[in-house]
Amino acid sequence: MTASPRRSRDVPLLVERARAGDARSVARLITLVESGDPLLPEIAAALAPHSGRAQVIGLTGAPGVGKSTTTNELVRALRIRNYRVGVLAVDPSSPFSGGAILGDRVRMQDHATDPGVYIRSMSSRGHLGGLAAATPAAVRVLEGAGCDVVLVETVGVGQAEVEVASLADTTLVLLAPGMGDAIQAVKAGILEVADVFVVNKADRDGVDATVRDIQGMIALGERGPGEWRPRVVRTVAARGEGIDDLVAAIEKHRGWLVEHGELRRRREARAAAEIEAIALGALRDRLGSLRSGTSLAALAARVADGATDPYAAAAELLDQLDRSAGR
Amino acid sequence: MTASPRRSRDVPLLVERARAGDARSVARLITLVESGDPLLPEIAAALAPHSGRAQVIGLTGAPGVGKSTTTNELVRALRIRNYRVGVLAVDPSSPFSGGAILGDRVRMQDHATDPGVYIRSMSSRGHLGGLAAATPAAVRVLEGAGCDVVLVETVGVGQAEVEVASLADTTLVLLAPGMGDAIQAVKAGILEVADVFVVNKADRDGVDATVRDIQGMIALGERGPGEWRPRVVRTVAARGEGIDDLVAAIEKHRGWLVEHGELRRRREARAAAEIEAIALGALRDRLGSLRSGTSLAALAARVADGATDPYAAAAELLDQLDRSAGR
Repeated sequence: MTASPRRSRDVPLLVERARAGDARSVARLITLVESGDPLLPEIAAALAPHSGRAQVIGLTGAPGVGKSTTTNELVRALRIRNYRVGVLAVDPSSPFSGGAILGDRVRMQDHATDPGVYIRSMSSRGHLGGLAAATPAAVRVLEGAGCDVVLVETVGVGQAEVEVASLADTTLVLLAPGMGDAIQAVKAGILEVADVFVVNKADRDGVDATVRDIQGMIALGERGPGEWRPRVVRTVAARGEGIDDLVAAIEKHRGWLVEHGELRRRREARAAAEIEAIALGALRDRLGSLRSGTSLAALAARVADGATDPYAAAAELLDQLDRSAGR
Repeated sequence: MTASPRRSRDVPLLVERARAGDARSVARLITLVESGDPLLPEIAAALAPHSGRAQVIGLTGAPGVGKSTTTNELVRALRIRNYRVGVLAVDPSSPFSGGAILGDRVRMQDHATDPGVYIRSMSSRGHLGGLAAATPAAVRVLEGAGCDVVLVETVGVGQAEVEVASLADTTLVLLAPGMGDAIQAVKAGILEVADVFVVNKADRDGVDATVRDIQGMIALGERGPGEWRPRVVRTVAARGEGIDDLVAAIEKHRGWLVEHGELRRRREARAAAEIEAIALGALRDRLGSLRSGTSLAALAARVADGATDPYAAAAELLDQLDRSAGR
């Protein structure tokens, strides 16, 4: 019997197997989620009762700061603490996905044979907004599979990374000495989403200046009483140094989240964003169905004639949409 | 009296001035259009009767193939033929806009004092889909201002460029010898949108191989009887060579468009895409208004609890949207 569901009734079985720890079923579910499969709503429904348990940690930073090494060491530290760990390596610009081992991901093979670790690469595959939709669903698959912690690692520092970071309970921003990352981070608006700054390669020259830059930026940030003040941790991930400090900072942040009701608030905000994105996709599909009818074509002809303008035409199209929905 | 409309009633005056050839009013309208100003629908309505007159030429290619030089020479050739010309230099990745003279745009200053030429840089300014919405509106401003030809130049060869290219009546794809562009063009799907291939820097080694590659790709493309077969033109834009051949190829394509009813078909397809994009934006705003209400928050809380999943919640949100629209 195959693990690939062709019909709705196969979904519960696949989810059941994933929950029992079957790695192939987990991989299959993430593939379905990533490709925007029509079974997605049913998968989401089957996973819902098992969601919200895992701590989601986002990890982002410019290329070359040592993200995969740091992720690898974090996984090791979390495994020692007996957590089940899922890793989603998200590359918004890469055409590679489907669990492919990326070039710089070789070290993650340390955990390839550990049944307590799921590692998965995801890419946008050219879908606009595809990752923003697929990543939370993939996180839910890993939660369903019993992961206590899900690490979402994104390559680069930019708008896409900020979005993915916003999925996390705790967001780590990695920097390395002398890379001018601090300024980049400010530009990309990543300062606002960072809960913990990780200055990796802290054995290099210039580490003190980098830490000072970040501390300066943090000091400039306005925050009310009781608000989280981002921590700065120094690591040399390649030698496993500072990783325990990093885990401590993550746990400290976790404690703060729970204590201030912020964990709940963040998760509700994430759920709201996800619901909106799905609803918008459905509305796009509805417009698409009007496209196949004659109404849009007739309106387009009038715009091409200069008899009306696209805004007036769009208003008319929406009227038709509302009438068809009101039926 | 200022050229900047603060109120709706100022829009007709601004459009009137732009139509009379006032460059500052043209610039102001494009800025409003680019920034997604709330007056956009009124601007579009005021411009509608004057739209559809200009020939829209898209020009795209990888960095370094000589796009701005070619554009500059094309403008010169079109001015000699007494056409009024608008140039929109669109950079999906650049934060610069607002008529800024880009570094590689210095040569365009040749036309800076010519009242028969409008030159304008546009960027996405981080708006997702912002350019796709703003560019056709900006084209309409230039049409309204009396331009006979509007050149839309895009930097790079990628999905964004293909989209912008799809706005044009005639799309030119620039390549240069030995840059591997041909393969890139195929990958990006730009082959399907190219009406004329321009092999620039045709005095360089390898030009024959590049032309052969393109001819080969064109030969492989399936097309029915009467369908346009892309032309290949060699230019050395820096010396003005081949530009008359390019103009001839553009006019040949224009003739074909008119003869086969394709000009009309393309413009209707463009109008349809524009109407849809505007309608979708409006739907997004409607969802946003539900966000400020309690319904989305309540649904998000239930998703965070695992009591429901985001897809079921989105379906419920859409029901509410339909009910509020049906009222």
